[in-house]
Amino acid sequence: MQKNSQISQQIINSIRSVIGAQASSLHEPVFNGNEWDYLKECLDSTYVSSVGKFVDKFEQSLAKLTGAKYAIALVNGTAAIHLSLILADVKDGDEVLTPTFTFVATANAISYLKATPHFIDNDEDTLGVDPKKLYEYLNKFTKQKDGKCINIKTNKIIKAIVPTHVFGHPCRIDEIVDIAKNFNIIVIEDAAESIGSYYKNQHTGTFGLMGALSFNGNKTITAGGGGAILTNSQEIAKRAKHLSTTAKLDHKWDYLHDEIGFNYRLPNINAALGCAQLEQLPKLLKSKRTLFKKYEDKISLLKGVSLFKEPNGCKSNYWLQTLLLDIENKNERDEILSLTNESGLMTRPAWILMHRLNQFSSNPRMDLSCAESITDRLINIPSSSNLIGKN
Amino acid sequence: MQKNSQISQQIINSIRSVIGAQASSLHEPVFNGNEWDYLKECLDSTYVSSVGKFVDKFEQSLAKLTGAKYAIALVNGTAAIHLSLILADVKDGDEVLTPTFTFVATANAISYLKATPHFIDNDEDTLGVDPKKLYEYLNKFTKQKDGKCINIKTNKIIKAIVPTHVFGHPCRIDEIVDIAKNFNIIVIEDAAESIGSYYKNQHTGTFGLMGALSFNGNKTITAGGGGAILTNSQEIAKRAKHLSTTAKLDHKWDYLHDEIGFNYRLPNINAALGCAQLEQLPKLLKSKRTLFKKYEDKISLLKGVSLFKEPNGCKSNYWLQTLLLDIENKNERDEILSLTNESGLMTRPAWILMHRLNQFSSNPRMDLSCAESITDRLINIPSSSNLIGKN
Repeated sequence: MQKNSQISQQIINSIRSVIGAQASSLHEPVFNGNEWDYLKECLDSTYVSSVGKFVDKFEQSLAKLTGAKYAIALVNGTAAIHLSLILADVKDGDEVLTPTFTFVATANAISYLKATPHFIDNDEDTLGVDPKKLYEYLNKFTKQKDGKCINIKTNKIIKAIVPTHVFGHPCRIDEIVDIAKNFNIIVIEDAAESIGSYYKNQHTGTFGLMGALSFNGNKTITAGGGGAILTNSQEIAKRAKHLSTTAKLDHKWDYLHDEIGFNYRLPNINAALGCAQLEQLPKLLKSKRTLFKKYEDKISLLKGVSLFKEPNGCKSNYWLQTLLLDIENKNERDEILSLTNESGLMTRPAWILMHRLNQFSSNPRMDLSCAESITDRLINIPSSSNLIGKN
Repeated sequence: MQKNSQISQQIINSIRSVIGAQASSLHEPVFNGNEWDYLKECLDSTYVSSVGKFVDKFEQSLAKLTGAKYAIALVNGTAAIHLSLILADVKDGDEVLTPTFTFVATANAISYLKATPHFIDNDEDTLGVDPKKLYEYLNKFTKQKDGKCINIKTNKIIKAIVPTHVFGHPCRIDEIVDIAKNFNIIVIEDAAESIGSYYKNQHTGTFGLMGALSFNGNKTITAGGGGAILTNSQEIAKRAKHLSTTAKLDHKWDYLHDEIGFNYRLPNINAALGCAQLEQLPKLLKSKRTLFKKYEDKISLLKGVSLFKEPNGCKSNYWLQTLLLDIENKNERDEILSLTNESGLMTRPAWILMHRLNQFSSNPRMDLSCAESITDRLINIPSSSNLIGKN
């Protein structure tokens, strides 16, 4: 017990020495730019809904930032993943590979299509999909048939893989894309957490056939809600926009819809907020990197715990700052969570692993020992970009 | 040709005599209340996303206005219908009755669940589901089995009915609810267009087990996007909120989700706009009623065309103002659409009927002769609540 309290107190002291005495949430948005001006302009135009200049501007700005040829603004990140899966032709009965160590939206979106999330493991140095383990698994448990990847245990098609850039840290996406290509599996990057994160100087979300972004209120930048699909395919971009706007064809007046469509377009008023936030991104990223360095200076002095650092060759947005306990200290996680939260520091554990949720507990999966080890030892600590400024 | 141009010109003159020389859209929002103050307050609070005081306030205000015990604020009207269908336990293989004369969102939402939209006819004096025809059809083509309504042609369960209050005009919802009850069919009202509309002094959307509202930018009031489920069932309300927020259970820190959930919660920033708009509703409704009366004064002088009036016993929000051509003038519809739009008056035909869309063309349906007759003769004319004030 004494030892437990000791590491908890050391962690609290370290965080406090960086951010001061303030109570702090895990992540809150910062509105220091043109947020007011753009919202007011949007309201004055009366174009607050699914058509308007901010939606177009937001898409153009996202494309410019990420280097994707096209960005399609949607109502949230879940919608972006759902629509990407549809565009990848994922159907009832297909399997889709996805990390067990991810937010539940990915597995949910796969389930909306009555496809099956098939869980894969991550590695400890990126927190993302482990390419080596993926390759060995696919090699052993799949076969190719008519240009499709078949799970030899279930006899179902493995249509796509949705690797997540966890907490903003890029996974080994180039290796994952290569493997997926070899096995005829479509890559949809879950870049919901990684706007502003680069892998080998290329923005995350632009390696796969599609990438999904999120602008939920807890993300690095927010549009209230909001999400987007990134792609270099004109055909996919066009169809994404079409499907997200009830699949309505252009006509001078007729309401002609040519397939089952969705109401997934980002409202202009959310896009207005998103445009202003996007302008602030460089400044926010800089603050978040500074916060990391300040935390690192303190946490590196402690024994039994480390601060997660961006993988080699990557530039991470440091969306969330992450503590990893050494294996021998894993039993102290709950104590640390309790004491930090009690002291006004909002901290959170990793997500419960997808294969441990009741609704996904019988899904196909590989050995998930790395995820299982990490999730027991991981704690996210206050990560807002304004924590430095306040102190 | 001469005759055609004559009625077109008469209609243009009538509209112009009411709204003046201004170019006018079909329906645009009006922001004359606390819209900016609430948006600014929301931004200043930094709670722009799925948690915040405006979401709660919006729900309370909606419940108070409509008399529903519970209102659950969602991202849009399509989400409200989709989630209502899930809460009604609509599943793959079920059939759901829905008017062919409605916006495509209803049929889409049914299709998301791999259920089948089964199309029914409307009557001419409400534009909504014809109860008499519905009763005769169900009586003839369904049987009861284990407390379920079975389509004897397809042998599938008819699980629910989604009657629409078209253009804001209440359908004969009490009769429809009675019939549905007799046949063990759940009623979900599509009240997307009918906020502020009352049937026998009760707000539309509160007669069925659930009702779906929409606050899209083209509606009477808007939240940018936005929608809501109305219900008197505490159990349904609780589950609607749970499912719309990724089915996450309350816990001091764990991310425990107990079923497949959705990202359907209305962001606080949209709710802020919605709250301000809701305060303006009485004033907007008054203006829209005045617009109707002014149009009626003029249109009633014309031959071969009439202005659609709220059904007996109803108080309609007059969301859209609607012309109905006499049957002998139906061939003039396109000419009228062309000339009005060319002259700066945005007019629109009725929706293309659902059973005429390719994706629904082989769906089960009753005789749809009334809808087929009406859709060829109907034209919506400029309906914004500020058209009077501007003139």
